[in-house]
Amino acid sequence: MKCEVINVGTELLLGQNINTNARDIGIILAEEGIDCFIQTTVGDNLNRLVSALRTASKRADAIVLTGGLGSTDDDLTRDAVAAFAGTALVQDDALRRAIAERIVDFEPEATEKTMRQALLPDGAVPIPPVKGTAAGFILTCDGVLIAATPGVPAEMRQMLESAIIPAMRDMAGEPAAFIISRRVKTYGLREIEVERRVQDIIDAQSNPTIAPLIGKGCVELRVSAKAPSRDKAEKLIDGTVTELEDRLGPHIFGYDNEDMEDVVGSMLDKRGLTVSLGESLTGGLIASRLIKRPGSSAYVLGGVVAYGNAAKRGLLSVAPHSILNHGAVSPQVAEEMALGARKAFAADIGLSTTGIAGPDGGTPDKPVGLVYVALSSADALLCEKTFFHGDRNEIRFKASQYALNMLRTHLNGFNEDDNRRA
Amino acid sequence: MKCEVINVGTELLLGQNINTNARDIGIILAEEGIDCFIQTTVGDNLNRLVSALRTASKRADAIVLTGGLGSTDDDLTRDAVAAFAGTALVQDDALRRAIAERIVDFEPEATEKTMRQALLPDGAVPIPPVKGTAAGFILTCDGVLIAATPGVPAEMRQMLESAIIPAMRDMAGEPAAFIISRRVKTYGLREIEVERRVQDIIDAQSNPTIAPLIGKGCVELRVSAKAPSRDKAEKLIDGTVTELEDRLGPHIFGYDNEDMEDVVGSMLDKRGLTVSLGESLTGGLIASRLIKRPGSSAYVLGGVVAYGNAAKRGLLSVAPHSILNHGAVSPQVAEEMALGARKAFAADIGLSTTGIAGPDGGTPDKPVGLVYVALSSADALLCEKTFFHGDRNEIRFKASQYALNMLRTHLNGFNEDDNRRA
Repeated sequence: MKCEVINVGTELLLGQNINTNARDIGIILAEEGIDCFIQTTVGDNLNRLVSALRTASKRADAIVLTGGLGSTDDDLTRDAVAAFAGTALVQDDALRRAIAERIVDFEPEATEKTMRQALLPDGAVPIPPVKGTAAGFILTCDGVLIAATPGVPAEMRQMLESAIIPAMRDMAGEPAAFIISRRVKTYGLREIEVERRVQDIIDAQSNPTIAPLIGKGCVELRVSAKAPSRDKAEKLIDGTVTELEDRLGPHIFGYDNEDMEDVVGSMLDKRGLTVSLGESLTGGLIASRLIKRPGSSAYVLGGVVAYGNAAKRGLLSVAPHSILNHGAVSPQVAEEMALGARKAFAADIGLSTTGIAGPDGGTPDKPVGLVYVALSSADALLCEKTFFHGDRNEIRFKASQYALNMLRTHLNGFNEDDNRRA
Repeated sequence: MKCEVINVGTELLLGQNINTNARDIGIILAEEGIDCFIQTTVGDNLNRLVSALRTASKRADAIVLTGGLGSTDDDLTRDAVAAFAGTALVQDDALRRAIAERIVDFEPEATEKTMRQALLPDGAVPIPPVKGTAAGFILTCDGVLIAATPGVPAEMRQMLESAIIPAMRDMAGEPAAFIISRRVKTYGLREIEVERRVQDIIDAQSNPTIAPLIGKGCVELRVSAKAPSRDKAEKLIDGTVTELEDRLGPHIFGYDNEDMEDVVGSMLDKRGLTVSLGESLTGGLIASRLIKRPGSSAYVLGGVVAYGNAAKRGLLSVAPHSILNHGAVSPQVAEEMALGARKAFAADIGLSTTGIAGPDGGTPDKPVGLVYVALSSADALLCEKTFFHGDRNEIRFKASQYALNMLRTHLNGFNEDDNRRA
């Protein structure tokens, strides 16, 4: 089955919204084994919408439209599908009642404008509204399945998965092939070095394919397999991922949507260890990232954002002469901050950062991007000097990622020398 | 001038990347007064690419292609444009030299694969590589301007602005109309209330148009004007924004890309006031947001992430009996945390949060989403009880936004009663 997607909305063409639906539909169709070769974005214009439907219907077995199903005059998807199919818009009474019931949550009363949402192209099967008052619908026209959903991402996804994909299945049966992807996330090696280590695996095979890409604070390898069943695709991926794990070892910190803070949080949780933070340039970012994870109160005791020197001295017990002799951005101060954070919260591990995020404050000796990260535990005191490129908040994020990885490495007992780069 | 955009890349169709280029090009074209009625996404397939070029060339005066200009076998944009134009690919010697010079930054030596990037459709004018080794190009074919840029967003933007837009200007002259937008950001009123207050302004005019939308932690009004010059469009917007300001008053906290932390940071900076944080459920998020802004060390003295009760007592001097009698999530503890944060850092203002982010830890009395926010200054101690829906990190973000707005309101001397809702 070949499917095309038409995203409807002048706001998309003007760049006022980012089209996350295009991505989400792409993922869902690929995982369902439905080919999608073309996506089109069209504005709120009846003629252009009808024309886009004509063009797509010549190439595809199914068309998914998103957006243009609201109650304003700009919402023209219903009208365009009816015009394309050569049918009238008719009122769906059940839908009208459902909208009347729901509208009280949003507006004092249902207007005739709202009730435009109860109109459907003649012969279309409604998909009830998910949350608001916008229904979707499915119409088959000259053998082409045409499905329309609201543009709201959560409503689109639910209608696609609950109604539209099953309708496509009814029409076309099980697909010939599924495409599944897994992302393998590494830290500590540059992209070119990751590629070098696995180039022969990449070159040797075409299914799964392996594509390196730069993620946020990591280098990823995307492994994609195509197979007649989901299970077979997963197995192909498992085999390749095992090979990648052999080559990249502990540089791999997670998979798919796992972030560094999830992995570190899970490790702390399992081992019953607690952590506390002493943050200067990262300024609460490490604490906030760790606390994202549900249940983090079990292992994050707290932190001090010691942005000024007085706070470094008063709350983290950094010795005044350390700041005086070495400066706030120095290995001595980083170490004392880690130790101070650990003691202030009586945690198992203290983790600290101090550095120059910029754009001002850099000197020839201590340029913008210089960061010290330190870790204190009952039996270790580590400090690493590192350097990051980028703007203020890129440097802050990279420093937080580096610090979390230092904690991961410490928990792993892994300390390979080349695990030092962003 | 009518322009179409073709985004090239199977990864876009599979949903492996989000298409930020579609948005960025949309914004730039609209601001340049160039109409864009259709955007198409096509995979790395020669026939489909050529076919998309044929279709677009029948409707548009100009076509911008993004992606497919790298050195791998999947990069087919050059080939597709040559096939569409009926010309051969020829090597550009100057480009070859430029690539050879640049490649040393990325790879040990230039391979023949890399040098595919020096090939251009015969007659095309190269756009030199921005950062890497991928050049763009412009070719005019039967009166249609065809421009290609790499898919890397920064490279695409630079080529579009420096070379492609000027080439479109040369071809079509100054545009008939520019579309400019401004976003007016409000906090403290629900979307429906914002709409109610300005509905008559929305209804009374079609230029500028006013569209309400829900932003991250705020309700926005997007004001878009179309006019023969940028200046005239800006003036139309100025007039409408003044009317909106009359209606929404201090609920408006910023414009366009200004976030709450930028606005609050700028207010603190101008008034020479300092702030410190005592954060429980937000866990460093408020500190980290404030520290995003360059120069924030002038007014953010620091903060304590007091996630555990021991930290609340030890570092923020919360009285043990307050926690015992009222619980950690209580107005008493919030107030003591704000006071403790202010004193610990000797700041002018202390700001605190305590609440239940979930998913666990809620009780009938203190459900997930309950948050107390407190502010302490030399002459004030304020505490507000509030409640947020959403998942753990939505609740945490909303609490940070509420707290920053409380600080803004305090600095404004504004304390209207209905400024209490997210």
